Amino acid sequence: MRINLRLVVSILGLLIMLNGVFMLLCLPVSLYYNDNDWPAISVSGLIALVVGFMGWMSFRNSQDDPLRKREGYLIVTLGWVSMSLFGTLPYIFSGAIPSFTDAFFETLSGFSTTGASILTEVESVNRGILFWRSLTQWIGGMGIIVLTVAILPLFGIGGMQLFVAEAPGITPDKLKPRITDTAKRLWLIYIGLTGLEMILLKLRGMSFYDAINHSLTTMATGGFSTKNASIAAYQDPVIQYIFIIFMFLAGTNFTITYFGLHGQIKKVWGNEEFRTYFKFTLGIGIILSILVFRVSDESFEKSFRDALFQVVSIVTTTGYVTADYTSWTPLLKVVFFMLMFIGASAGSTAGGVKVVRHLILLKNSFLELKRQVHPFALLPVRFNNKAVPSEITFNILAFMIIYLMIFVAGSIIMAALGMDFETSVGSVITCLGNIGPGIGEVGPVDNFSKIPPFGKWILSFLMLLGRLELFTVLILFAPHFWSRA
Amino acid sequence: MRINLRLVVSILGLLIMLNGVFMLLCLPVSLYYNDNDWPAISVSGLIALVVGFMGWMSFRNSQDDPLRKREGYLIVTLGWVSMSLFGTLPYIFSGAIPSFTDAFFETLSGFSTTGASILTEVESVNRGILFWRSLTQWIGGMGIIVLTVAILPLFGIGGMQLFVAEAPGITPDKLKPRITDTAKRLWLIYIGLTGLEMILLKLRGMSFYDAINHSLTTMATGGFSTKNASIAAYQDPVIQYIFIIFMFLAGTNFTITYFGLHGQIKKVWGNEEFRTYFKFTLGIGIILSILVFRVSDESFEKSFRDALFQVVSIVTTTGYVTADYTSWTPLLKVVFFMLMFIGASAGSTAGGVKVVRHLILLKNSFLELKRQVHPFALLPVRFNNKAVPSEITFNILAFMIIYLMIFVAGSIIMAALGMDFETSVGSVITCLGNIGPGIGEVGPVDNFSKIPPFGKWILSFLMLLGRLELFTVLILFAPHFWSRA
Repeated sequence: MRINLRLVVSILGLLIMLNGVFMLLCLPVSLYYNDNDWPAISVSGLIALVVGFMGWMSFRNSQDDPLRKREGYLIVTLGWVSMSLFGTLPYIFSGAIPSFTDAFFETLSGFSTTGASILTEVESVNRGILFWRSLTQWIGGMGIIVLTVAILPLFGIGGMQLFVAEAPGITPDKLKPRITDTAKRLWLIYIGLTGLEMILLKLRGMSFYDAINHSLTTMATGGFSTKNASIAAYQDPVIQYIFIIFMFLAGTNFTITYFGLHGQIKKVWGNEEFRTYFKFTLGIGIILSILVFRVSDESFEKSFRDALFQVVSIVTTTGYVTADYTSWTPLLKVVFFMLMFIGASAGSTAGGVKVVRHLILLKNSFLELKRQVHPFALLPVRFNNKAVPSEITFNILAFMIIYLMIFVAGSIIMAALGMDFETSVGSVITCLGNIGPGIGEVGPVDNFSKIPPFGKWILSFLMLLGRLELFTVLILFAPHFWSRA
Repeated sequence: MRINLRLVVSILGLLIMLNGVFMLLCLPVSLYYNDNDWPAISVSGLIALVVGFMGWMSFRNSQDDPLRKREGYLIVTLGWVSMSLFGTLPYIFSGAIPSFTDAFFETLSGFSTTGASILTEVESVNRGILFWRSLTQWIGGMGIIVLTVAILPLFGIGGMQLFVAEAPGITPDKLKPRITDTAKRLWLIYIGLTGLEMILLKLRGMSFYDAINHSLTTMATGGFSTKNASIAAYQDPVIQYIFIIFMFLAGTNFTITYFGLHGQIKKVWGNEEFRTYFKFTLGIGIILSILVFRVSDESFEKSFRDALFQVVSIVTTTGYVTADYTSWTPLLKVVFFMLMFIGASAGSTAGGVKVVRHLILLKNSFLELKRQVHPFALLPVRFNNKAVPSEITFNILAFMIIYLMIFVAGSIIMAALGMDFETSVGSVITCLGNIGPGIGEVGPVDNFSKIPPFGKWILSFLMLLGRLELFTVLILFAPHFWSRA
């Protein structure tokens, strides 16, 4: 069977139109602050609407064709790429980011909820454009929830559905309507939490503009800030704790949050990934706060807050900063680098490897020691009290190996472009893991402006790969994907 | 069933006696060079002989007890540790390495064929002791061949027997006598190649003493040199090419070398691991020589030789040095760091992950992409034209994950001891991979003397873990290993 490209183009058209609508949402912001970017934003939005409409209309009668797995893959990857292409327009037309390479990097960094930025002076960018920047992350975060909760399980793509799709009401029968139902519920949580965070930040004295931007980028685990100093610009402890809590929530499986909101605490704590994610983040946060306390002149509360904030920010792949973790001690730099390989929960907006994959791999490793002593015992990995099918473990194995291969290849390419050791490995893992800041010259107080153009394209590709969990993108490069069989 | 500790002690006694015999082999060297260390060497050898004899005699009548898997594990790990403990005596008594921590590090670095050294002035150490240093590596190399060819397959330990035990004549029936037979043949190759290298080096003008020391440490992929400058002390291109060839041979599966010596070229080239190992090493060597040529003022031949030498030295986990790869370019430093994760062939004296494991993991990853498109197709990994059982793939997966976990934990500990980022990750991977030099402050022109004592113990443990392929050691820490069931 051939891939139904008409259907693909038609759906991409819809997505681009949607993108245009979102752009036009920035128009009132620009007009309100009277920042002269309203023509750039209007034109960008209209172009996206018109081009999208043309794509959608051209093959409108393909929309009743069955959507199969291969079209699904193609739409997901091309969807993210085409949204990012059109998303550059406001930056380019307004002159905020004149270079196309830079604008694409910034836009994909938004839609992929990475948060790596080429802007050295965020505060000098006009407010309408900056709102678009925050909005790209929020859209990306919403997109990833649709993807993991609604699209991937529908096609049986990826090995994660077992862990994610324990969503309320998803059963093999009547899968499709229920999934749409679930997606809607999770969106409500996403939108609701964004609103709640915004209100809390506003109540603590943050300006309305900053509150809405930051809550958009927190819930997406994106990390774009409207301040040059990121969250360090707000020294109010309560504001920083609000961020810690909402970053943590954004990195929690949204179905777990759903159960939590419905008072089903047993289901929340009964979930192994959540338990591990909670204990790990808090545990590492406490250990590191002791280390930070020892080397800094600050109070223990401040050390605890700084350490926990940075740990939650890195583990959830948000990437906000209240302190420069690379300047604390060599130990802490190494620890934070390693934390970049963790990633928060499946079914959240976080990127990276995810806790559940690490758990399965660790459990399998310990079981292997047991298998060595008892070679004839049948010892499958158990997760949430169920045996994990070996196909899933194989899938996770493959994911991890490809992830590391890409990390190695990426680091070598960045080093070939003249980056030093730390910048090479740091920039690659932070983009692949959709985090934001890395170590070396792309550390928490730096940005990506100094990276050469080719490096920016490589890092952009890594953001896309990481966001779409590798396979969805890589499969498009496999010859058998395009074969008729 | 309880573990038969009497049998374990008795066999350890034999090993320690053997160790004493080897020590006494250094006596004629010391006497010939009249270096006043003969009393230290004699006393060390006699202590090993007496203590070993006592251990052996005490439980002599346990020797007819059946040797089971668990005793096997215990003997292998404790064997390496006790050999290293007694192996420190010549260093300590002669005053060459007064500190016990340093002496243990140096001895285990020998027996594990790592080659990491705490000696800043190798050439000021007396010749009898320096011969002992080289000999520990050669014994370690021989030990690892016995282990992989004779002991591990006998107990069905590890997942590698599938790839290693295609040795001549190993069939499930009459396994035991044939294995002893095979081990003998492989020893002959080991001894023969050591002798051949020695003759070639001597013919090219190296002193007899240096020739024998270097051939002992080449065939063990150990890398201890009798020169401060390592192999850079010999600028004769032919000598350096001799080293390249013999390092490569030492990193080749010895059964493949056996087939090669018997003219069965089809079997050699038909082996996937060998083919990959050969192509990879040569390919990377050629690519890097172009890069080195571009940044150095040397001829292309010299650049090629330097690059190939360093690549072969790192991939085979030997650790000899003719040029400082960390000083070339940032790119090359990153590449060499990544090469430290490769390791040469299974069934060779090389340490590290090994090419075959990488191959299986890579193949499985590519297959996973195919499995995503064709979820119902049965797609096992194929190696040497045979389907690899999923237990083996699981074992390799577990190996890789534990390897990386240990790398991460080790790096964090080293950083906690105050090492910088590069030194932390570099010292850990070079010890875990049994290589020798790392990057950072333990790079090719440095040594491990500056590492704090606790760090030396950690690195020693990593050398042991790496040499015994993780499971053999780790299993001793699993509660179920000691349970009676």
